[in-house]
Formats: sequence, C-alpha cells, structure tokens
Amino acid sequence: MFQTQNEVLVVAGSGTAAMDSAVANLCSPGDRVVVASAGNFGERWLQIATAYGTDVVHVEQAWGERLDPARIGEAAAGAQAVYVTQSETSTGVVHDVQAIADAVRPTGAALVVDAVSSLGGVDLRTDEWGVDVVVSGSQKALMTPPGLAFASISKRAWELHAQARSPRYYLDWSTAHRAQSKNDTAFTPPVSLLFGLRVALELVETRGLDATFAHNRRLARAAREGVKALGLDLYSPDDDTSAMVTAFTMPDGLDGQQVFGQLRDRFGIVLAGGQGPLRGRIMRIGHMGYLNEFDIITALSGLELAMADLGYRPPVAGAGAARALELFGREPAHV
Amino acid sequence: MFQTQNEVLVVAGSGTAAMDSAVANLCSPGDRVVVASAGNFGERWLQIATAYGTDVVHVEQAWGERLDPARIGEAAAGAQAVYVTQSETSTGVVHDVQAIADAVRPTGAALVVDAVSSLGGVDLRTDEWGVDVVVSGSQKALMTPPGLAFASISKRAWELHAQARSPRYYLDWSTAHRAQSKNDTAFTPPVSLLFGLRVALELVETRGLDATFAHNRRLARAAREGVKALGLDLYSPDDDTSAMVTAFTMPDGLDGQQVFGQLRDRFGIVLAGGQGPLRGRIMRIGHMGYLNEFDIITALSGLELAMADLGYRPPVAGAGAARALELFGREPAHV
Repeated sequence: MFQTQNEVLVVAGSGTAAMDSAVANLCSPGDRVVVASAGNFGERWLQIATAYGTDVVHVEQAWGERLDPARIGEAAAGAQAVYVTQSETSTGVVHDVQAIADAVRPTGAALVVDAVSSLGGVDLRTDEWGVDVVVSGSQKALMTPPGLAFASISKRAWELHAQARSPRYYLDWSTAHRAQSKNDTAFTPPVSLLFGLRVALELVETRGLDATFAHNRRLARAAREGVKALGLDLYSPDDDTSAMVTAFTMPDGLDGQQVFGQLRDRFGIVLAGGQGPLRGRIMRIGHMGYLNEFDIITALSGLELAMADLGYRPPVAGAGAARALELFGREPAHV
Repeated sequence: MFQTQNEVLVVAGSGTAAMDSAVANLCSPGDRVVVASAGNFGERWLQIATAYGTDVVHVEQAWGERLDPARIGEAAAGAQAVYVTQSETSTGVVHDVQAIADAVRPTGAALVVDAVSSLGGVDLRTDEWGVDVVVSGSQKALMTPPGLAFASISKRAWELHAQARSPRYYLDWSTAHRAQSKNDTAFTPPVSLLFGLRVALELVETRGLDATFAHNRRLARAAREGVKALGLDLYSPDDDTSAMVTAFTMPDGLDGQQVFGQLRDRFGIVLAGGQGPLRGRIMRIGHMGYLNEFDIITALSGLELAMADLGYRPPVAGAGAARALELFGREPAHV
C-alpha cells in the first residue's frame, strides 16, 4: 500500500498522531524545517512544527491552490525536513508529490508527506519518488474505522531520528520499531481495528492498487459532473487529480452549514462543510474508501433534495444523478 | 466512572498515550517529580518522566510489593507531581491510592494515578481522595476494545498545565479541552470504539458501580481459591484487594511461557505470562471487565488440562473448578 521497502510503523491514534511523530522524531528545537500549506491540513503541519520549537519556514499559498514545487524547493535549502500534504481534504486539491519530491531532492532535506486521506486512493510511489516519511490513517482510503495511524520511514529519516532530541515517549519511533521487530506492539494495540484493516487490505489486494485508483477517479468524475449538472460551481479542480474530495461553492444566499444540517437531519447523509475561512461557503463530497457508484448517486440525490428544501432547485430535476448514471453506464466498472 | 466533577479528556490511543500526556502536560524539563514503582507499569512512569527530561526521584520497591505511602509522602516534598499505579497488572497488586493521596496531600504535589487496568473495577474516589489526574484506557475494566485513553484533570493540574513547557501537540490537553467544550474532538475520534464504550458504560450504570466492584471481588476470590485448590501458590496477595489480576507461581520445573502457549494453542484460552524478571516464573489470570463466573471456571479448567499436558497434575482432578463453583454457589451473584 505504501509502495515502499521501508518499515511501516503502526500506532494507536488518529492520523494526527503519526503527523506529530514525524516532527517529534525528526527534529530538535531550533532545527530549520519547511512547511508548505494551502489549506487546513497543511496548516496543521505548521502548528505541530511550531509546538516542537522548530525554526519554521512557511511556504504559504491560498486555500484551494496547488502547492508550487519550485517555491518549496527554494525554501528547502538548508532545512532538515520539508512537510507537505498529498490530499488537502479541506479544499479537494491533491498536490503533486512527485514534482515536490523532485524539487526537494537536490537540497538533501527529508521529505515528509501527510497522506492521511489519500494513501491507497491516489498514487504515492514512496520509494520511486524518494519520499522519506509517509504518514496515514486508517479511516479514509484505507477503509477501516478511525483509530490507527501509520508512518513509513526511510533510511535517511532513521538517521535524522537518531539525532533528534525532541522529547517523546508514546510516539517514539524506536520504541515502536523494537516491538514490531518482534512481531509485537509497544503498547496495547486496537485489536478490533487491526482485524478490520486486514480485511480492507485484502480488498485492495484482490482488486489491485491501480484498479483501486481508477475506481476512485471514476467515482470522482461522476461526482464532479453530477455537481455541475445540478448547476453548481466546482471549488476543487475539475480534473482527474481531484480523486478524493469534490468541493463545490454554495450558490448566493445559501449557507453550506444549513445544507449540511438538512442532509444529515432529514436523510442521514453526512457530507462535509467548509473548514476555516471556507465554512458555509463550500461543501465537500468525500469519495475515498469503501464506496461505490450508488454512494455517489445517493450523495447527489440527497444534495438535490436538501437544497430544494432550502430554496435552490437544479436546472432539471434529477439532473445530477442522471449525469452520474450516464457516465457510469458509459464506462464499465473496474471491479 | 471516574467519581469526579473534573473534566475527563478522551484521546485516540493506548492507555500509555494518556500516561504520556500526564507528564508532557504537567512538567517542564528539570522539574522535580516522584515516581513510585513496584512492577512493570510503575516503571513505565519512570521511562516517560525520564523521556521528558524531568528530575525524577524514584521510590523503587521490589516487584510484587505494595507501595509504601510513607516513603512516597517523604519523597514528594518539593516535587511538582507524583506518579503512581493503582492496579499493577504485572504483579496483581492493587496499591492503596487513598493512603498514598493522604501522604502526598500535605506536600502540595499533584497526584497522578495510572488506573488503566483498574478504573471501573476497583474503587477510585478521584475527588474524595483528592487525585489530580486519573488516566485510564478502554480495554480493561471499561470493557471496550483497546484504542481509547482517558484523563481526568483537576483544577490544580490545569494550573500546572498552564506552566508546563514540554513540547506536545497530539496529546495537548488544552487542544482536547477546547474541542470537547464544543462537543467535538480535536482529531478524528475512533467512532466504533466510542459506540462500544457507550454500551459498556450503560452496563455499568445499570448494575451500579458498587455492585460492579463486588462482582469483581467475587470473581477474584474464586480465581484465588481455585488456583490454590490446584496446588499452586499465589504470587499476588491473597485478599480482596487483588480484584483485577490473580498471579500465581509456577511449580518447580514448569515454565509459565510453555503453559501460556499450551493454553493458547490447544484451547484458544489466553492467560498472561510473567513480565520482565517474572517471565516464565508466574502466570496471571486477568479478571477485570466483561467477564462472568463461567470465564473463571474456563480459565481454571483450561489451566488444569494444559498443565497436565506438561506433566503437572493437581492433588484432585477438577479441584480448581470445583472449589470456584463451591464459592459461587455459596455467595449469590450481584447481578
């Protein structure tokens, strides 16, 4: 799943636990690091790096933009580590990790990628692209309930770890490594989640990683086309890179949080609202993980009915679901 | 469950995550703290306090002993915090937290209790005894799969937290508090475990806390008497304080790890072996949590058969189960 020969450590916790560990285990106070952000989860790296007292260079871009590899490469000169996001769930943008890795490589800085919402959903060639640390969580593309976090760690990252003096205990990589070397865990593992994860990994193995990525792109295309057919404007990019989350802007006069509430309370459908400055202004359909065509149809159908309750009607009734079905019928499923 | 008016923070992680948080959130490097230990989990406090660079006074007692409140009280003078264990699962000893609290109180140090394996199993009057921080986990007496950790935090502990400069992000108490104040969690919560926890708490609420404690003492008495009837010597104290774990010594020539393997592989019964210096020398029956009389009978029966496979036979066949049944029949269940 990680497309790596590196050891993958497993920790009981949210994906953020693995993110935290990737600062605590690589850095000492005062170390120069680079954080590149264009949304809520990129900014989380900034918060963590700041909490550990590192000397942070923040390559900040507006929410919704795609990270600029050239700017990151420039900032990385002389830095210990570079922290970026693959799928910026808050905006629906999937950043180009391969291009970022190419830009960072000449500087010698370690590259750390938050793939919490993308690992197993879009391509991430850890070893081929030279990503030193990939962190992820169980509950998105990995199709398991939340509560497990992961970190793959390269030889270079282990070397930095050996020098890093930030205090840590529960999230210490060496402690986890020692236990995993004996086919054990350092602390009590969430056994029910590990059993679930085994089933999820078997599902992906049966389908194949490339077919899984294709399945996600297919669902995402139907979500984008369906949203547009409802007369709504996309906020996330209108191309195949946006395979994890489709974000769209609210029409004038409509509050995304109200639509969110209506969908949840009337239909039991949970989409996501906007985060931070986008709260109320956008809504998001997450389509990573254990989903099929009918989940997309359900989301588009519920969205149409909930927005109608609040006064917004699409150009043609049922246009969103119809457009998605047209696409699904044209392109055979990969499963 | 915590017998407190203090806020109880919930974190995704093993119980050790909450233990880690109780050092990271209360201490700065160089702060004087006291760790009292008489077993594996007491020593974990020492490892955490050392990892965070505190100035640790270690009140060390031999594994299997009961912590001496007077020694802890003496050491606590001038300390910021005192770290102790309630149920020392490695030895089966439940320490006297009330007496320890009485000894620590005059010193002004904050008292932190690891109740991972005991909360909801034996009495822990957080507010009445004046315990500043109680940490626990979901998977022992709280009858839920592992993956949730908890910490109750007194006013005094929040004051120390405000001064504590150890770096932390994922396990920061203020971050958790801000989210919980809005009926939210700071990071993705392990939802499947929280639904399980709700059911477990309803079970305890229905039965009542005192009846739950009595149920545990009853199971523990039957375990102790059954083990003795098998001709084995108790390692844990032979009294009602040992309500969570019954530990017993291996007869000469028998390796506890072999008995452990035989039980698991032949019968699918998992008891616990000894930890650290006790490995191979003792075995342990854990009887906290979602257990009833028949689990005790099963453990004693499996133990007899597995030990017989390895050459040890009790004085009378079936003596362990018979003795437990005698006790269960004499004393009516509390449920």
